[in-house]
Amino acid sequence: MVKEYEYLSNTDIEKAVPDYISALSEEGFSAKTETVRTSDALGRITAEAVYAKISSPHYNASAMDGIALMAKDTFGASEASPVVISSDRYVVVDTGDPLPEGTDCVVMVEDVIYEGTDARLIAAATPWQNVRQIGEDICSGDMLMPSFTEITPYSMGAMLAAGILEVNVVKKPVIGIIPTGDEVIPPSDNPSPGDVIEFNSTIFSAMLTRWGCEPKTYPIVRDRLDLMRDALEKALGECDIVMINAGSSAGRDDYTSTIIGEAGKVLYHGIAIKPGKPTILGIVQGKPVFGIPGYPVSGIIVLTEIVRPVLESILKVSLEHQPVMETTLTKRVNKSLKYREYIRVQLGRTGEKLTAVPLNRGAGVVSSFVKADGLLSIPQNYEGLEAGEKAQVTLLRDPADIDRTIIVIGSHDPLIDEISDMLRRKGSEFFISSSHVGSMGGIMAAKRGENHIGGTHLLDEESGTYNIPYLKQYFPDGDAVLIHSVYRQQGLMVTKGNPKGIKGIQDLVRPGISYVNRQKGSGTRVLLDYLLKKEGISPEGIYGYEREEFTHTSVAAQIAGGSADCGMGIYSAAKMYDLDFVFICNEQYDFLTTRKYLDTPMIQEFISVLKSPEFTDRMIAMGGYDPNRPGEIEFME
Amino acid sequence: MVKEYEYLSNTDIEKAVPDYISALSEEGFSAKTETVRTSDALGRITAEAVYAKISSPHYNASAMDGIALMAKDTFGASEASPVVISSDRYVVVDTGDPLPEGTDCVVMVEDVIYEGTDARLIAAATPWQNVRQIGEDICSGDMLMPSFTEITPYSMGAMLAAGILEVNVVKKPVIGIIPTGDEVIPPSDNPSPGDVIEFNSTIFSAMLTRWGCEPKTYPIVRDRLDLMRDALEKALGECDIVMINAGSSAGRDDYTSTIIGEAGKVLYHGIAIKPGKPTILGIVQGKPVFGIPGYPVSGIIVLTEIVRPVLESILKVSLEHQPVMETTLTKRVNKSLKYREYIRVQLGRTGEKLTAVPLNRGAGVVSSFVKADGLLSIPQNYEGLEAGEKAQVTLLRDPADIDRTIIVIGSHDPLIDEISDMLRRKGSEFFISSSHVGSMGGIMAAKRGENHIGGTHLLDEESGTYNIPYLKQYFPDGDAVLIHSVYRQQGLMVTKGNPKGIKGIQDLVRPGISYVNRQKGSGTRVLLDYLLKKEGISPEGIYGYEREEFTHTSVAAQIAGGSADCGMGIYSAAKMYDLDFVFICNEQYDFLTTRKYLDTPMIQEFISVLKSPEFTDRMIAMGGYDPNRPGEIEFME
Repeated sequence: MVKEYEYLSNTDIEKAVPDYISALSEEGFSAKTETVRTSDALGRITAEAVYAKISSPHYNASAMDGIALMAKDTFGASEASPVVISSDRYVVVDTGDPLPEGTDCVVMVEDVIYEGTDARLIAAATPWQNVRQIGEDICSGDMLMPSFTEITPYSMGAMLAAGILEVNVVKKPVIGIIPTGDEVIPPSDNPSPGDVIEFNSTIFSAMLTRWGCEPKTYPIVRDRLDLMRDALEKALGECDIVMINAGSSAGRDDYTSTIIGEAGKVLYHGIAIKPGKPTILGIVQGKPVFGIPGYPVSGIIVLTEIVRPVLESILKVSLEHQPVMETTLTKRVNKSLKYREYIRVQLGRTGEKLTAVPLNRGAGVVSSFVKADGLLSIPQNYEGLEAGEKAQVTLLRDPADIDRTIIVIGSHDPLIDEISDMLRRKGSEFFISSSHVGSMGGIMAAKRGENHIGGTHLLDEESGTYNIPYLKQYFPDGDAVLIHSVYRQQGLMVTKGNPKGIKGIQDLVRPGISYVNRQKGSGTRVLLDYLLKKEGISPEGIYGYEREEFTHTSVAAQIAGGSADCGMGIYSAAKMYDLDFVFICNEQYDFLTTRKYLDTPMIQEFISVLKSPEFTDRMIAMGGYDPNRPGEIEFME
Repeated sequence: MVKEYEYLSNTDIEKAVPDYISALSEEGFSAKTETVRTSDALGRITAEAVYAKISSPHYNASAMDGIALMAKDTFGASEASPVVISSDRYVVVDTGDPLPEGTDCVVMVEDVIYEGTDARLIAAATPWQNVRQIGEDICSGDMLMPSFTEITPYSMGAMLAAGILEVNVVKKPVIGIIPTGDEVIPPSDNPSPGDVIEFNSTIFSAMLTRWGCEPKTYPIVRDRLDLMRDALEKALGECDIVMINAGSSAGRDDYTSTIIGEAGKVLYHGIAIKPGKPTILGIVQGKPVFGIPGYPVSGIIVLTEIVRPVLESILKVSLEHQPVMETTLTKRVNKSLKYREYIRVQLGRTGEKLTAVPLNRGAGVVSSFVKADGLLSIPQNYEGLEAGEKAQVTLLRDPADIDRTIIVIGSHDPLIDEISDMLRRKGSEFFISSSHVGSMGGIMAAKRGENHIGGTHLLDEESGTYNIPYLKQYFPDGDAVLIHSVYRQQGLMVTKGNPKGIKGIQDLVRPGISYVNRQKGSGTRVLLDYLLKKEGISPEGIYGYEREEFTHTSVAAQIAGGSADCGMGIYSAAKMYDLDFVFICNEQYDFLTTRKYLDTPMIQEFISVLKSPEFTDRMIAMGGYDPNRPGEIEFME
């Protein structure tokens, strides 16, 4: 049954969150405390100021091996007139021994000349010399840490040194997560069509764990009001905070707002953010109850931008805030005026600039959060940002790692991922970050200085050769550098068993054959169009010519999924999906860099990986590749 | 028995560590792997590249509520000439439903006009419109993560979306920690003189836990070769790596190097670092065995600068590296040419500069690591750095927190710690970092622009008034601003029960009375010297006049510990140590800031805390204080 969806509000996040926090505070919602052993307190937050119980050191100790005595007994001692101390007026001590009664200094053994049992000193000692005094490190009663401070390994040591064996800390909030939806199933490696794998609870649990909370995930609840009511009731009995995660359909969260409204109150339903709009902020039995939207990216944003500030107000600490850095956008970003929008970006250091490449904005695309280096937040009342404009980006990665990341933008091949793995296995300091925009996209990125390197396999129709004609054309100053890598087999990937008997390009216009294409500007698309022209075939005759996918594997996935009969792509993708392969030609897939980056340690290491025997082994194992003097450089003279 | 200590080497850390890592690699020492459930894999490191098992989505799904049909059936539809689809040629679908067999697009319900059971469309549909295709997020066979990559909440979600229920990860290295020493005892709140509390193992365990290892602490082993041999043998049987922690005496680690040398080999004994020189790098049964020096700061440095790089080479990831920032040193730092030295610093943002104040360099001073914001590493062959020189400092705190830290340098009072606690309790964004250098030190710091505020209680002999004469003298431009806070009782702290009947200053020169003084430049010292002059008493007559401590509590700690009879200090310190108190006078303890900082949010918040009722409550509870219009500002006209 489709319900007409109605938002009750579209509130600015900068109003909703502080209001909600105030409302919770008025309800008296606050963190609980507990006592834990100091040795178990790593990462916990102090519930009150911590004062030293004893001093450290807690006794006056000899700081040297030597003799302890009264300093005044040595007054006037010099080389010319040494002072002799009889054995009843000194005590032999080792480092760490308590200073004996009746002594107030230590002379180190190197400075003592024994004459029988007497000690002869040639320099006067001063009181307290070579004594490690009580409280040199910590004095009893001193405040070691104020309230609401995260306990570090060092403060654990200081507390034990100060005689503090137990410490009062903030109890980790127990946060119940209730996944809901008729279509969702627990994680599976063999789901049926229509099943949606429930993995949000795993992501949220992990995020909450990192923020010092104790997540508790409940079994999936079906979309029935009575079941959801029971689940909320149960969770409220066991948790401090509850998060109800909607299914991914619009309209589903009506149930959530209904049950929260019945059991308590809904303060906000609908926040002016994108993704994440259908968020619900509620209070039931004095506890926070959140309605979290169903798409994973929406959920991640809502946890980071809404739930985390609420937790910070309760725990009174800052949770895991990443630095914000200024970047330059590579592509125009459009947005709606009505919402604050959060856009995932990949970052790269090319020269002085830190560039930001906006990623896929689909709310269901969790892989974008795996690839993302940063999050760009654009307020309401902005229509977007232009390419080349500066933007403040919150980092999701260590800035030092970003500086050591090789930005690969161009035509994708699974070999790029293998190179990334090889860098990790050899313990390289460099990382790879790749974007698949096709060969022409890679050339454009190189011209704009947005990447370090990119894959390219562009066939020049006139000469019948690959890549070099394009590099000469687009880099007339001779900046481009070609790095050889592989020959790879291109052909038509077809349904396993080739039930429709597809033999070549000419079959694409047969009735009943559906095709899935690659995007314009990709080398595979350029190849197809060249072959169609050569055979005199019109694209209009191909059913599915307008249907565009962005990678070899996604073309293969459509064919394997049965929604198309064939598509052009590389052998290794066909092999991966167990499709049949109709060979068409060998093409040359190379890497393009510029003279500016060729001699950098990054690119030199990339090249050395290409030259390694392991790279050739891996390509042979994947199938459809032959080495083409990998790593050999060619300049465009 | 004192053994003559002999270092076998004094090797540059930049040679020793890479050599050691190579030697371990040659022995075949490497990380093990294990399989864990994806939902348990947060923070673990992938042991191999992870490839998607299924696509996500794994089926073609409707992206909308509407009707599914074949796009070609709608060709030519327009408002002028709508197309009617009979009920046998469309299927009603909800968002997320699998695309039915024989359909290739979805028209959303808002665009459908029903005529009985027929559907009337006024626009043509394109193939695959409103369909969320297989692999839109992840394609089966795509590499999700390369080897040796830390698993984040997001990659856990991506793995589950891709049907990966288990993942092969690097097994956490089990690291045995063997504390040794005749004098060490397990943590206690009531140790006897001579007992040294063993807390290093707690610090090291916590550091290793943060680095993704599994520490295992063994019971304390006494300084006997046979006992230590047995302990090493046992630990090697249960752990991947062993750390033997020496007692704190020089000479003790002979035992460690002896047992390592007998059971395996010692590669290095003695690294040219300070602190941390007596470090031992050994290999036994193909496993790393470290000899870690006994002083806590030495141990922390050795773990960070030596053990961590070894772990990184095994785990093939970077562990918890903090940013490095350029700072300006406030004080000259001397060092030995022979060693690379590690110096703890406090950092503060005063204007553009990030200033670094070197902290106590004692190797036993673990509280310095609680206070430290950064670590300055100065290589061999440098004699030191001058005040005002630039230095690269590795941060131990979030740089954003440092920017929000109020630098308090001057005369210390426990009330400063209470203000710090009050800031935390009110959820302030600001922190306090304080250095105790005495009142004059605070004035000098303010003149050099090194602090934001500082405590001061300097009596002007001529006028008999506090602070203002000094501020006018040292800030002739009228920059100084006085912020009122408290009157506090000054007097002589004496042994409980006042067994020697001390009644006033004049008793300080009595025979048999020992005094403990404050450092030159402190307000308490200035007060004493003024009173002595007034009474015509010569300092030379006071036994212990040269004995200087830096805080009220450390003076009180010496008296309470029995090594002095009395010392001047404030009532609250006497109360804290349960000492008797001979009142001398009320003094004015105020805060000094400059016009530059007065109106900053930081100082305004500091002032609002002074003005709060709670500040007055806390001072009354501590005893010996009276409010002196706290927070009231006085300019130096």
